[in-house]
Amino acid sequence: MGLVIQKFGGTSVATAEHIRAAAAVVAASQARGQQPVVVVSAMGAETDRLAGLAKDVAGAPSRRELDMLLSSGEQISVALMAMALRDAGCEARSFLGSQVRILTDSVFSKAHIREVETSRLNAYIASGGIPVVAGFQGVDAEGEITTFGRGGSDTTAVALAAALNADECQILTDVDGIYTTDPRVVPEARRLSRITFEEIIELASQGSRVLQIRAVKFAGKYNIPLRVLHMSGVGEGTLISFEESGVEAPVVSGIAFTRDEAEITIVGVRNQPGSAAAILKPISDARIQVDMIVMNAPRDGCVDFSFSVDRADYAQAMELARQAAAKLDAEDVLGNAAVAKLSVVGVGMRAHAGIASHVFETLAAEAINVRMVSTSEIKISVLVADKDIDAAVRSLHRAFELDQPSGRWSD
Amino acid sequence: MGLVIQKFGGTSVATAEHIRAAAAVVAASQARGQQPVVVVSAMGAETDRLAGLAKDVAGAPSRRELDMLLSSGEQISVALMAMALRDAGCEARSFLGSQVRILTDSVFSKAHIREVETSRLNAYIASGGIPVVAGFQGVDAEGEITTFGRGGSDTTAVALAAALNADECQILTDVDGIYTTDPRVVPEARRLSRITFEEIIELASQGSRVLQIRAVKFAGKYNIPLRVLHMSGVGEGTLISFEESGVEAPVVSGIAFTRDEAEITIVGVRNQPGSAAAILKPISDARIQVDMIVMNAPRDGCVDFSFSVDRADYAQAMELARQAAAKLDAEDVLGNAAVAKLSVVGVGMRAHAGIASHVFETLAAEAINVRMVSTSEIKISVLVADKDIDAAVRSLHRAFELDQPSGRWSD
Repeated sequence: MGLVIQKFGGTSVATAEHIRAAAAVVAASQARGQQPVVVVSAMGAETDRLAGLAKDVAGAPSRRELDMLLSSGEQISVALMAMALRDAGCEARSFLGSQVRILTDSVFSKAHIREVETSRLNAYIASGGIPVVAGFQGVDAEGEITTFGRGGSDTTAVALAAALNADECQILTDVDGIYTTDPRVVPEARRLSRITFEEIIELASQGSRVLQIRAVKFAGKYNIPLRVLHMSGVGEGTLISFEESGVEAPVVSGIAFTRDEAEITIVGVRNQPGSAAAILKPISDARIQVDMIVMNAPRDGCVDFSFSVDRADYAQAMELARQAAAKLDAEDVLGNAAVAKLSVVGVGMRAHAGIASHVFETLAAEAINVRMVSTSEIKISVLVADKDIDAAVRSLHRAFELDQPSGRWSD
Repeated sequence: MGLVIQKFGGTSVATAEHIRAAAAVVAASQARGQQPVVVVSAMGAETDRLAGLAKDVAGAPSRRELDMLLSSGEQISVALMAMALRDAGCEARSFLGSQVRILTDSVFSKAHIREVETSRLNAYIASGGIPVVAGFQGVDAEGEITTFGRGGSDTTAVALAAALNADECQILTDVDGIYTTDPRVVPEARRLSRITFEEIIELASQGSRVLQIRAVKFAGKYNIPLRVLHMSGVGEGTLISFEESGVEAPVVSGIAFTRDEAEITIVGVRNQPGSAAAILKPISDARIQVDMIVMNAPRDGCVDFSFSVDRADYAQAMELARQAAAKLDAEDVLGNAAVAKLSVVGVGMRAHAGIASHVFETLAAEAINVRMVSTSEIKISVLVADKDIDAAVRSLHRAFELDQPSGRWSD
């Protein structure tokens, strides 16, 4: 294998000892004949420390100055990582986003990459060196420092992989791969050796926290194999790639879940054009993200309109829903902040009928009430009561035989 | 008054509160009609924290990577200071050395400034803004970050003052000016309202720690008035400038002293060409700085050769002196690590005879033995026993009436 991007997140470089260990992993890759290009995040709690300082000096810090401030975190990490690699006998050098250079638009704190220049990196690689690139940061056309938002180091890694035509982009982190579900809830949860981009995007958007969705989408777009593996470098981790032709995809790959949901139902809304918009527009104007949306078939010209939001937004969303309901002359507004969501994900669902009914049968057998449902081509999400979520995940993990490498639903 | 550089050192920006207070000082200057350009150092202990991390990851960190690492400290400070100024209602923006840009040579960790580009700063000033410039750092022709060594923020301030043609360069710090001597030893020590560049350079090189010599020399070269004042902005501080014609300079301005000295004497060296070099060359080859050097007039073709070194270098210097003495067939080597040095400084000495004898009379009256003497045009330094240094400084401070604004020796 040739060129490999190795990205170490904040927990993987949290202390001097972690940095030395990460450098050893990189040096070992080089010794195996690979050409590593390293990307690092800020050390552990550094970004939070800096954000705290900003809060202490100014009520509403400017985004430009926040980017100037926060980008120093990665600057510290790249310098230390380059030192550690040199100490381990490697030729290594740190590069800031502005030095690479990673050219972005000028949207401070959530900039998008326009272009990654590769001449300096390629020259350094050709001379036998290991570049250590600061994650999370770029530079705009005026030379202003920009950042990509939280988790932006994954974006840097994938963008470099695309620009340098890397063979693989490795995300080294504190877990050893992607699991069928959270092992804290289901001890029999199994590490997946492979998963598709579509599945990981669904899993990530449904609560799995290992990767940033934006970086995964970017990797998918450029067809860059992503591998999540443990920061110790031990194990194969999970390879994220496109479905290979000839290999039948598993029906169900994993179950993601989140506990911090809330549901709101407006009862007896007259079913006429504009009703849904009248309810949802004020919510989105308040920058509240609506997740599931369900509307039943009309009865007597009226519908019940339900949606789910993040629990933190519940009180505000309820208030807005009450105002909308009053304007629409609806019957009532019901709310429940003690709900959780789980999602069964798998690209093989496309070709298999009966997944949804198996989900409902399984939950019914456990006497778990389903409050809301939404489906996509490769996912079924259900909203259940908070207290039922662990039992629901466990029963579905068992029902789809996710604890068995070659169960009935796995190929 | 027009454009003023205001430089805040590490203690002046040590916490979020300090930064807010410093921003208030800058905002007040602007309100008085001045155009401030701010220079800041890294927050308090930040540079030491980063240097400690470097030590933890690598035995001998590369200087390039150290500069990459340490320059992040000032990056944090400029962002926070710009935020605080904006919060105080000012238009302000942070600038890194690479953004200004402050072009340097490529000698990492002790780079010299080649050029300060002023177009971006001038454009921003013209738009009504207060630039906040990172001290201590620049960029070389290849875009590599360089630093100027400890205290390098003073250098940045003076270089900006020269490039922007500032009316004054203010160094805001934790003392309210330059004193006739250390007030901890002499409570009657007086703040000087004015002092010359030559005097401050002698005082600084003799142990006064307020300013970096390099920055003062630079300011003198470009004839930029420097003012040391308290970080609260209260008071006039001390103005450092050239002697004004027509104003007679004080004979004695101040007394500096250092406690960490050691003396070495090689007794009975044959007085022939090359003897002095044979003694001093091995010392300087070991990178030990020799301060005072004294050789008495020869007697019987032999001399006693004495010199002083920093106490930390004493053991090594003694060993090297013994080796040299053996080669030169000298009689003996004597050493004393319990000595201290004081220097009486004043540009008016040039025109006044009798200063040296007044120094010796004063010390003799206190029964203080002088162990070594060296003089320059505006300075008399003497080496005394450690235990005598406080009494020596106090008696000379009194003898030269430094506690009285218009004493006999003050004009």
